[in-house]
Amino acid sequence: MFINGLLLMVLAFGMFPPLLADLIAHNPDWQVFAASAVVTMFFGSLLTLSQYGRDLQLNIKQAFMLTTSGWLLLAFFAALPLRFSALNIDFADAFFESMSGLTTTGSTVLTGLDTMPPGILLWRSILQWMGGIGIIVMAIAILPFLRSGGMQLFRTESSDTSERVIPRIKRMTATLLVTYALLTTACGLALWYAGMSPLDAAMHAMTTLSTGGFSSHDSSIGYFHSALIENIILVFMISGSIPFVAYFKFAHGDKMAFRRDPQIRGLLGILLTMTLMLSAWLVFKDNFSIFQALRMSAFNIVSVISTTGFVSTDYALWGALPVGAFFLMTFIGGCTGSTSGGIKILRFQVLRQVFSGYVWRLIYPHGVRTTQFGDTTISADVALGVLVFTLSFLVITGLIGLLLTSLGLDLVTAMSGAATAVANVGPGLGTIIGPSGTFASLPDAAKWVLALSMLLGRLEFFTVLVLLTPGYWRH
Amino acid sequence: MFINGLLLMVLAFGMFPPLLADLIAHNPDWQVFAASAVVTMFFGSLLTLSQYGRDLQLNIKQAFMLTTSGWLLLAFFAALPLRFSALNIDFADAFFESMSGLTTTGSTVLTGLDTMPPGILLWRSILQWMGGIGIIVMAIAILPFLRSGGMQLFRTESSDTSERVIPRIKRMTATLLVTYALLTTACGLALWYAGMSPLDAAMHAMTTLSTGGFSSHDSSIGYFHSALIENIILVFMISGSIPFVAYFKFAHGDKMAFRRDPQIRGLLGILLTMTLMLSAWLVFKDNFSIFQALRMSAFNIVSVISTTGFVSTDYALWGALPVGAFFLMTFIGGCTGSTSGGIKILRFQVLRQVFSGYVWRLIYPHGVRTTQFGDTTISADVALGVLVFTLSFLVITGLIGLLLTSLGLDLVTAMSGAATAVANVGPGLGTIIGPSGTFASLPDAAKWVLALSMLLGRLEFFTVLVLLTPGYWRH
Repeated sequence: MFINGLLLMVLAFGMFPPLLADLIAHNPDWQVFAASAVVTMFFGSLLTLSQYGRDLQLNIKQAFMLTTSGWLLLAFFAALPLRFSALNIDFADAFFESMSGLTTTGSTVLTGLDTMPPGILLWRSILQWMGGIGIIVMAIAILPFLRSGGMQLFRTESSDTSERVIPRIKRMTATLLVTYALLTTACGLALWYAGMSPLDAAMHAMTTLSTGGFSSHDSSIGYFHSALIENIILVFMISGSIPFVAYFKFAHGDKMAFRRDPQIRGLLGILLTMTLMLSAWLVFKDNFSIFQALRMSAFNIVSVISTTGFVSTDYALWGALPVGAFFLMTFIGGCTGSTSGGIKILRFQVLRQVFSGYVWRLIYPHGVRTTQFGDTTISADVALGVLVFTLSFLVITGLIGLLLTSLGLDLVTAMSGAATAVANVGPGLGTIIGPSGTFASLPDAAKWVLALSMLLGRLEFFTVLVLLTPGYWRH
Repeated sequence: MFINGLLLMVLAFGMFPPLLADLIAHNPDWQVFAASAVVTMFFGSLLTLSQYGRDLQLNIKQAFMLTTSGWLLLAFFAALPLRFSALNIDFADAFFESMSGLTTTGSTVLTGLDTMPPGILLWRSILQWMGGIGIIVMAIAILPFLRSGGMQLFRTESSDTSERVIPRIKRMTATLLVTYALLTTACGLALWYAGMSPLDAAMHAMTTLSTGGFSSHDSSIGYFHSALIENIILVFMISGSIPFVAYFKFAHGDKMAFRRDPQIRGLLGILLTMTLMLSAWLVFKDNFSIFQALRMSAFNIVSVISTTGFVSTDYALWGALPVGAFFLMTFIGGCTGSTSGGIKILRFQVLRQVFSGYVWRLIYPHGVRTTQFGDTTISADVALGVLVFTLSFLVITGLIGLLLTSLGLDLVTAMSGAATAVANVGPGLGTIIGPSGTFASLPDAAKWVLALSMLLGRLEFFTVLVLLTPGYWRH
């Protein structure tokens, strides 16, 4: 309750920039932001003060409860300005949008963004930016502690002298925040230089580094028709999806930090391979020029794999293979310890080791072989965690998709909607929620299901699922 | 080579019934069957005789090679009568059909079945029937030995006094064959009694017990418009998808063999739950009568989950939820040690234990808990095998689906086609390969991909995949 209160107070402060923006633009919504900030601040301080002076040690059960309740509370209060603004949307829409923001998913129910007052647009970007730093801190500080989905791999690293990163979470959080803010500023300045308005540049910088993907234009990045802007965003989407620990190490003198990280090499390898393959397809099958094919496939592939979800063109029109490829790419995700979602590169790398070890032992049943990840041995525990996580990811996505079909969505909308929500990507496939569509026309029940799916995916399932087991509630 | 030769000789004998049927029907295709039988017999005896007198001990590498090469060889020779008959189809079609038969998948490229000469129809049924017994023997004798996909669970059981089943494979095979033949005869007699022609009854009995699903009518079981026939087939589809060891034990005096087997209870539970849920949906959403809803959902659900693939009506017209449910049900499958495919009940039961154990350990990191399956402890090795298998099943299906989109198939056809092939079910979804469609119009390349996918799924992936690793070929 103490930490949730603090988080709400931070959220309340986040409402001031949109308040100011609407005041300057003479938009009456500034009152909505003011009222929401007061309410959020009130409840936040109430929660914090009620626990003030108590012992602040978190046990494992409290840590599970904190992560789920924290994100739910924040999404609820963050939805207030959306609900009561001039947008005139119901609470399902507002909650969907705020959850999509905080989890850095980027799916939207709003249209007419191009003519929308600045307050709401700024608020959506700030939500993603705050969500992004929340995710990094959670991935580095809390998930390894909870050993969810094989994340204890990073826990063992903390005891390694060369990687003594976890012990000082507080100093770490401050450093991460500075890194994150500096990268965002660099991105914003570059976008401004490339021709965006200062407000557009600031908002897109916030939603790029957080791999969120909210835009201030209905046609997303396609609106700008600028290869320079696309390339700037591409670079910073990658910056947002590599482990933030690498920046930390680099700043502390480890000049090889980026090159030595197997996840970064893996991510770049996947992005390059996918881009070259899809470009070749577009050149030979769809008669794109080589330059056009590379530009279009690189941007949209980086956008989907980094789980940002910006769109520079409607790739749903490229035919069955690209659509199938984008569906499968939805699941991949960036690196652990970054702002991106999905299954994540680390797990694919662990899986590759586990699979080859498994096949090897089928042939040599009595052989002994250890599986390595970088300098760390992959323990049976980590292997199990990664396998259970990845399988859960696919099965839960399938079941959410089935639930969505029961609410009237067609198979492609339901399955791609479930995947894009769970992986925190943004756009789905099909004519409704595809790259050029929105989630606005879905029934309210589907919006609730999708919003909770975003949370489930963001918290890597088990953080939420343990709360539903009788074992958790037993004393 | 010795065993493959024997298998080919058995296949050649299987060509005699269609030869006779065509002779009686004055259909010149009898010559094709005669020639194919001679060729197959020739190559079979060549292989066998070339190795005659050698030591017959199989090592583990040879066992892997035998399973893959055996099925490929059989499918190749089984395709000969289809290729050279009056059907006038190319080799891709013939190989697809023979692989679909031998793996008891039941996808077809043929139309006009209702007016087709008896030889070809009988040949398709015999292929499925022979494939069925091959699968049972393989599942009981070879896969546990290869420890593929957690199947060593049954290996440990063989050392258990109460389940000393594996040691005498030869006697076992004979007993299994008798059981299988008796059940098929019972099914055939029941279908004849219910109004089928003797030939139809024989053919459908063979494709029911083998959970294959080839029919002699384009509209499959829907052709007969008979609830009695549907119910008979329903019962025998279930008989074909429970562990054949249970019959063996029952015949040896263990009257509780069926009731004690957790897989059988699990399968019946899933079938009942799914039927009731889908029936409720059909009654409330699609205005079916209760009787009609139960009849239609029970038959088609049992058909898909047992991986038979008979169709009594076009369930693709029932709307998004039923279509989504049938898509997910494609993956489930029957019990291990039966003729059915898919992921299989046993693995879901192991997964449930592994998952609940995993979540329990997240909450109590220092607790100790063993996971049980029936009376057997699930070892870390079995858990890993089941997890790797299930994840591979989903990932490989996704990748095959992607490959199919590159050949021009739309997303639903590609993904459901991949799933139905890998799980050896039969019908896919969508307008082309759905319950009332066929695979005839797909490009040849897609037919090859699907035929090899059937083999991959039938052999539970790793039996084939180990052959592709450098480790296998190292001395």
